[in-house]
Amino acid sequence: MEMQYVIDTLFSLFAMTLIIFMVPGFAMLEAGLVRTKNVTAVLTVNVMIYAIASMAFLLIGYTYAFGGWDHQDSISKWAFFMFQMAFVGKTINIMSGGVSERSRIMPLTLFTLVMAACIYPTIVNMIWGANMFKDTFLDISSMYDLAGSTVIHSTGGWALLAAILIMGPRRGRYKNNQIHVIPASNIPLVTLGALLLWIGWFGFNGGSVGAISSKENADAVALTIMNTNTAGLAGAIVAWVMMYIEYKKFDITMILNGALGGLVAITAGPDLYPIYTPILIGGIGGALVVFAVPFFDRLKLDDPVGALSVHLVNGIWGTLAVGIFTEKSLLAQAKGILVVGLFVFVVSYISIYVINKLVRLRADDEEQLVGLDDSQCGMEAYPEFKRSI
Amino acid sequence: MEMQYVIDTLFSLFAMTLIIFMVPGFAMLEAGLVRTKNVTAVLTVNVMIYAIASMAFLLIGYTYAFGGWDHQDSISKWAFFMFQMAFVGKTINIMSGGVSERSRIMPLTLFTLVMAACIYPTIVNMIWGANMFKDTFLDISSMYDLAGSTVIHSTGGWALLAAILIMGPRRGRYKNNQIHVIPASNIPLVTLGALLLWIGWFGFNGGSVGAISSKENADAVALTIMNTNTAGLAGAIVAWVMMYIEYKKFDITMILNGALGGLVAITAGPDLYPIYTPILIGGIGGALVVFAVPFFDRLKLDDPVGALSVHLVNGIWGTLAVGIFTEKSLLAQAKGILVVGLFVFVVSYISIYVINKLVRLRADDEEQLVGLDDSQCGMEAYPEFKRSI
Amino acid sequence: MEMQYVIDTLFSLFAMTLIIFMVPGFAMLEAGLVRTKNVTAVLTVNVMIYAIASMAFLLIGYTYAFGGWDHQDSISKWAFFMFQMAFVGKTINIMSGGVSERSRIMPLTLFTLVMAACIYPTIVNMIWGANMFKDTFLDISSMYDLAGSTVIHSTGGWALLAAILIMGPRRGRYKNNQIHVIPASNIPLVTLGALLLWIGWFGFNGGSVGAISSKENADAVALTIMNTNTAGLAGAIVAWVMMYIEYKKFDITMILNGALGGLVAITAGPDLYPIYTPILIGGIGGALVVFAVPFFDRLKLDDPVGALSVHLVNGIWGTLAVGIFTEKSLLAQAKGILVVGLFVFVVSYISIYVINKLVRLRADDEEQLVGLDDSQCGMEAYPEFKRSI
Repeated sequence: MEMQYVIDTLFSLFAMTLIIFMVPGFAMLEAGLVRTKNVTAVLTVNVMIYAIASMAFLLIGYTYAFGGWDHQDSISKWAFFMFQMAFVGKTINIMSGGVSERSRIMPLTLFTLVMAACIYPTIVNMIWGANMFKDTFLDISSMYDLAGSTVIHSTGGWALLAAILIMGPRRGRYKNNQIHVIPASNIPLVTLGALLLWIGWFGFNGGSVGAISSKENADAVALTIMNTNTAGLAGAIVAWVMMYIEYKKFDITMILNGALGGLVAITAGPDLYPIYTPILIGGIGGALVVFAVPFFDRLKLDDPVGALSVHLVNGIWGTLAVGIFTEKSLLAQAKGILVVGLFVFVVSYISIYVINKLVRLRADDEEQLVGLDDSQCGMEAYPEFKRSI
Repeated sequence: MEMQYVIDTLFSLFAMTLIIFMVPGFAMLEAGLVRTKNVTAVLTVNVMIYAIASMAFLLIGYTYAFGGWDHQDSISKWAFFMFQMAFVGKTINIMSGGVSERSRIMPLTLFTLVMAACIYPTIVNMIWGANMFKDTFLDISSMYDLAGSTVIHSTGGWALLAAILIMGPRRGRYKNNQIHVIPASNIPLVTLGALLLWIGWFGFNGGSVGAISSKENADAVALTIMNTNTAGLAGAIVAWVMMYIEYKKFDITMILNGALGGLVAITAGPDLYPIYTPILIGGIGGALVVFAVPFFDRLKLDDPVGALSVHLVNGIWGTLAVGIFTEKSLLAQAKGILVVGLFVFVVSYISIYVINKLVRLRADDEEQLVGLDDSQCGMEAYPEFKRSI
Repeated sequence: MEMQYVIDTLFSLFAMTLIIFMVPGFAMLEAGLVRTKNVTAVLTVNVMIYAIASMAFLLIGYTYAFGGWDHQDSISKWAFFMFQMAFVGKTINIMSGGVSERSRIMPLTLFTLVMAACIYPTIVNMIWGANMFKDTFLDISSMYDLAGSTVIHSTGGWALLAAILIMGPRRGRYKNNQIHVIPASNIPLVTLGALLLWIGWFGFNGGSVGAISSKENADAVALTIMNTNTAGLAGAIVAWVMMYIEYKKFDITMILNGALGGLVAITAGPDLYPIYTPILIGGIGGALVVFAVPFFDRLKLDDPVGALSVHLVNGIWGTLAVGIFTEKSLLAQAKGILVVGLFVFVVSYISIYVINKLVRLRADDEEQLVGLDDSQCGMEAYPEFKRSI
């Protein structure tokens, strides 16, 4: 027993560390996708989200989600906390990424507090934690979501949708009813960031199995990591082929977003599938990204990093996939999606609406024109490089 | 027994994860070494190699190499697969890096398929796996190659040599019988990439010991990682000193390539040497890189990242070193080098030749002039920075 | 017993690997903080420090510090060496970072030798190792410094202070009695580097617990990592709030240095505190950085990366904090700080003074004007980007 405690604690610390690599992962991905004049602001937001969300979760969110520090005793409670804490910021990274290039920083930090102390812990409470709605019609604890297709990814996605509806698109993005393409400013950073996220996902999903200290658990962890990776591969390949057929070019940002889409899609049930099923689930995930990106653009939902397509769409798809490809109840999955979606969207909308009244969320046209680095941070990301744009 | 299974599975997952850091490692290294106009193409190739090679290994190569999924039962079979899968792309990264700045992407993806589904699994089958040539004169399973000086590094190197012979040098590289130096475009990326590769090597070599769950194995793993690191240190130091004596300048790309050369050289037998021997083996590895880079240039074998010098030359040296510094048979090592070299070179040459007939491999002068980012990807790596070149 | 040996060896290899991520961590942080014309030089120094310091520690420093290879037998001696080796370069990174943009490389490599073979091993010997001054008035082994607030961070800081006093500020930094602000050239690299350091800290502090193979140890390791992280969060948040109140802008370099200050401050006793105390210790750490940076500038101690503020000031603060917030003797902590400070500062000052006489340490004004990349390395970091400065 003591050896199991030790090994599972070590395992969860290992998994947690991989997830923390997603902090530079998201930061580099988003810093690469936005324009040079907004890079420092994006990086600042990413670092502050990690700091504030983690602190709020330590002080408030964690005990709310799990009902206290002593609800489990199979691993060190400190390791359990660290593993759970590593998740929180991700929901807000998803949201903040999607409103890049037009959001002021202070209101984002306020929403970070709300998300980390209230919205996200509520969802965790309902699905992974203390289950406060037990035996009510809001009880969704029978849904299966191993590592958070719904709990993390669509939660972040719904909050982002609320934010986009309130904020509107970036200045000039849909001028004269046309979609003005704004290219990513630094492709190596985009690639580095996406690959760090990919690696972090091994810890995210593998660690969510919760234990490795029996033969059965060791197999489950290894299968989870393998299936996670396979879904990422399939998402990348499908996005590549689809883009190549349409444009005869290799679009690396779409390939990477396709991979991320596949990774989100597998996240609800990576431990449940036989080894070839993730090719289908991740492949569909990649295809959904390719379809969803222009779809949201047609709706004028401006999302500079494709977060709605990657996280919201595939969070939903991945959660449903568990109901389709395993014996879990599709109905329970759908109900979970619905309840979470409704709750997160409504509470996020209200929170962001109120925050926006208190502290203006949207950078005005002038601020966007000079860039958020100047207006928010007083600091350029690359001050010595002459810019052509 | 169950605890050993658990611990060795955890260990192999840890080692595998370190190897996956080599994906951003190679990507950043190569993106930093090429010119700005080819950076997106290089990154795209790196991501696609990981996706396609891993998928092809899952679907075809793995069972070909090892004769099925159930050939071992000391760790989770899914963890064993993931560890082996993490290797595959490396052989092609070596090859694709060396033909950077002049190769179109589609034929590279086709060769990736051939390498991951056929060439590399054949080599693994012969040396680490099912050994299909057992008891024939092609049996080279008595050679010692712990983590792939031959299986990975010279395999990639021979494929690269075949590709260079077919493709020729970059436009303008050897114009008027002079060597035109083309400087690396982004030294921080080069450094980041090389250091990530270095870290990945701990997983590559350490994990190749295969188990950590006895005192003996734990010592072997720790010694392997220590010797691996020492060889890298020595390679860096020797390359630094040699370059400084000759040029009175500190050449970081050569220092890093010297380190990588040392790391390749130790890879055949890092578990076999006492702790000071790697200084010699890695140091010679670094020296070989310093000599080999201009040597290949004199032969007009154009290799923008020095992959022939790092991987082919040191793959051979490292494999021989096992025969020189330990009691293993030098003859068996030499025979292994020869058989692998012949097989990989010939099959790669034929494959690339045929692929080149089907889909032109070489970017023409016009495409090279504007850069592969434009012609292949329709996307610049750093679109906002004004270029002086 | 054998299982404990195995698990603790695996754990220490895991922790060591995280620390090695601090090599790219420091390299990226410093490369991002200096001007473009000095980036290659900074990167070269970082790589060479790792190579030379580690090699010198292998050949000389390690046995000096610990009295031989067989002083412990609870984990593989090779793993123990690797874990200790991972520390050495850090002390010199701290020093070299603080004299960036004005120091020639060769004398830095000489000081690296002195530090890794003599100064640092002496400190380790006194506090963590063979304790050569046992029962003399120099015995400071009763101080508590789990992972090196004093042994690593203020050691590096004192050496840096000596170097700055000998070298003087960068050309033009305090011209006409004004402080000329020199902005960081690449904020994404700064962010990436700081976050990699943060992750490395989990290994640094967690691994310093020394074992994870009992329930008690597993809890201690997990608590250590949790407290480490919390101090980093608090440092970032406090630095953010203070800077925002003063300047109404978000200053990411100060936020990151605040986080690093918090991490340094917790490092002496992360295993000793209950979970909310690190908020105070790290928060004060962040505040100290915000105060110390302009303080050192007023003293004309020019430190381009803020290393004195982060590592020296917080190394002292963190060591004292153990005496304030736990039952450990504040006197013993203060005596340790004093003895180490005196020894390191004096020996470093003499060493750097002598080295400077043999090989000029300071790049002259001309060399600083064109940049160290050109004068020391003959290689630009980003040769293709047009510069506005």
